[in-house]
Amino acid sequence: MKRIDLLSELVLENQTKLLLLVIDGLGGLPGENGKTELEAASTPNLDKLASKGEVGLLQMVEPGITPGSGPGHLALFGYDPLDFSIGRGILEALGVGAQVAPQDVCVRGNFSTWGPDDVIVDRRAGRISSEKNKELIAFLSKNIEEIKGVKVKLYPGEEHRFVAVFSGEGLSEEVEDADPQKNGLPMRWAEPSSSRGSLMASVANEFIKRVRELLAEEKQANGCLLRGFSQAPHMPSLSQLYKINPVAIATYPMYKGIARLVGMEVVEADRGLEGLFEALSSQWDKYDFFYVHVKYSDSYGEDGNYDAKKEVLEKLDSLIPKVLELKPDVLVVTGDHSTPSQLKSHSWHPVPVLLVSPYVRHGNCSGFGERECAKGALGIMPAHYLMGLMLAHGLRLSKYGA
Amino acid sequence: MKRIDLLSELVLENQTKLLLLVIDGLGGLPGENGKTELEAASTPNLDKLASKGEVGLLQMVEPGITPGSGPGHLALFGYDPLDFSIGRGILEALGVGAQVAPQDVCVRGNFSTWGPDDVIVDRRAGRISSEKNKELIAFLSKNIEEIKGVKVKLYPGEEHRFVAVFSGEGLSEEVEDADPQKNGLPMRWAEPSSSRGSLMASVANEFIKRVRELLAEEKQANGCLLRGFSQAPHMPSLSQLYKINPVAIATYPMYKGIARLVGMEVVEADRGLEGLFEALSSQWDKYDFFYVHVKYSDSYGEDGNYDAKKEVLEKLDSLIPKVLELKPDVLVVTGDHSTPSQLKSHSWHPVPVLLVSPYVRHGNCSGFGERECAKGALGIMPAHYLMGLMLAHGLRLSKYGA
Repeated sequence: MKRIDLLSELVLENQTKLLLLVIDGLGGLPGENGKTELEAASTPNLDKLASKGEVGLLQMVEPGITPGSGPGHLALFGYDPLDFSIGRGILEALGVGAQVAPQDVCVRGNFSTWGPDDVIVDRRAGRISSEKNKELIAFLSKNIEEIKGVKVKLYPGEEHRFVAVFSGEGLSEEVEDADPQKNGLPMRWAEPSSSRGSLMASVANEFIKRVRELLAEEKQANGCLLRGFSQAPHMPSLSQLYKINPVAIATYPMYKGIARLVGMEVVEADRGLEGLFEALSSQWDKYDFFYVHVKYSDSYGEDGNYDAKKEVLEKLDSLIPKVLELKPDVLVVTGDHSTPSQLKSHSWHPVPVLLVSPYVRHGNCSGFGERECAKGALGIMPAHYLMGLMLAHGLRLSKYGA
Repeated sequence: MKRIDLLSELVLENQTKLLLLVIDGLGGLPGENGKTELEAASTPNLDKLASKGEVGLLQMVEPGITPGSGPGHLALFGYDPLDFSIGRGILEALGVGAQVAPQDVCVRGNFSTWGPDDVIVDRRAGRISSEKNKELIAFLSKNIEEIKGVKVKLYPGEEHRFVAVFSGEGLSEEVEDADPQKNGLPMRWAEPSSSRGSLMASVANEFIKRVRELLAEEKQANGCLLRGFSQAPHMPSLSQLYKINPVAIATYPMYKGIARLVGMEVVEADRGLEGLFEALSSQWDKYDFFYVHVKYSDSYGEDGNYDAKKEVLEKLDSLIPKVLELKPDVLVVTGDHSTPSQLKSHSWHPVPVLLVSPYVRHGNCSGFGERECAKGALGIMPAHYLMGLMLAHGLRLSKYGA
């Protein structure tokens, strides 16, 4: 039996509240002082939770594999990230705040400079400014709302980049890039890679022609290319799978987007850690599964700023008592991947996790840190098992077999 | 290569004796004193074995999944419990002490009250007494021995419930319940759910008609229903897989039954822990793999009786020297699942395991308990790997690859 079906078959509904607090890029590596950011941070509240709960390390994909935010989050939500993947176009769309429905096709756009006979002179239109990009997108959005019954939504990005989301019946991602790949070559128009992609390819080419007409007077950005056609992966929603009513509390577009893909409601929160936890409190009565996403730990890790990452963790720790006031039945604190400030990037190192419920074998751990967690009662666990464990501690799974 | 084939391919025969002592429901949760039943129990002999051996925790199915006794035992015997499962009808049959051969179809029966035109007035025949049930089964057994060349064996259960085992060529479990599901509806006769089930369905319907004739004079139990047609899973036997000659020493019918399903001989033992170990001693020269099942630890856990569970473990510990006198080459002490008295039920928590042989990296562990085992040399291990480990410590596995 497949694991994802196994849980669905056993799952029960009840009133327990499950809280998953994701500290982006939580895991780190020892700095010059011999301690990781988390180990060096003064986190008395998390330490206490670690000693009251069970701790371990989450292997997000498998040993040695560095996860992107997509696979990291899918694993935390119970999907094996090797069985489900989120395409590049989709992630870009989520990153610029696009709302993506299951059938939509997301595409990465480039403003580009076209010469005579549709030769692509500059695929990046001289890297126009992001402000200019915004203006052009606003103008195009007014003039292109629908093509062949397919709705078009455009989102500006940085410099020459934008995102297009196409919504309608019969669309498919099975379309080759509309992009000659090199400057100085004639335009290569979109072509379906299977018969399923023909509508999308013809809509894409019609879109590019309309952009050419509308921007004919522009010097640099007088046309566009479309690349990376992708649809949301076909994945059952969290409520279908686990009979939960989940909500995401996150401030960055990509995380809201991933949450929507797995069927979570998304509520707005003010930026800043206080804002997150205020939103959590205000939503507490309406849902039973809460995903809270803290971004800044990852951003500082990516910057290589050890001290700032450590300070975010300390600030977060000081807000933990607010979380505990809500009395979650199951509380998990973990990350979606490691971001050691030494590497200035995501890394493959497994991620500390702590789980608190009335049903834990507590006491193996004196503080919340990578090396304490390595000795913990949860062991080193594939991250996609976490959801089953949270449901179990919420007494939401019946027995397997008699 | 499938793991189960891997072991078969490498397995060797020799004279080593392997002993698997299963303490049902062994694992627990910390009580008010901060200790689990096993941690609180005075178990000097098991503690000594733990320090001389390797310890760890067995994940019976996967994190968060609470196993029934069937999946728990299959895992201990080396079968991945997600690849092999035992149907409800089979387990009921094993539970009442029925002997089930691989081709047999086991069915749960209800005595029921039939009215005119085959309307089922009461599916449970007014919950007749278990004594009355026994009488009826004795009477029916004398009068229905065979139908269409298929042998019929009947076993009384509690109140209106009984078990029927059908043995013969060409039977299949692919039959829908002979049961209208609700009182007041006309009888719904057995129907094959695929062509393979046609013989079984017609035998079942003929059986029900004969019961109607034989019990025509009864007021309440004047007929029956048949539900949950199931056959033993197709699984290779332990001796086929591992070239061992295994025996089960267990007092409860269900565990004897599971042992027979995997091809073990079953010997009778007096109830009580002493009886088990006397039977073990007396069989020591005849077999090379010994499965000994201790039930009471689970029963007291299910009752929520922390102290009684702890006392069973202490009693068991006092008998360990008798086991050691036999000088097993490999000794494993573990459980088929956790049954914390706080939960009064099976639970998902991994199960302590200790393994003693001359070939262990001993010394990580000061006593036999959940949290000592969490730090052990075996780590947290899927339970279905245990069999391979026992064979290896018995020097019964050759090298994989050159």
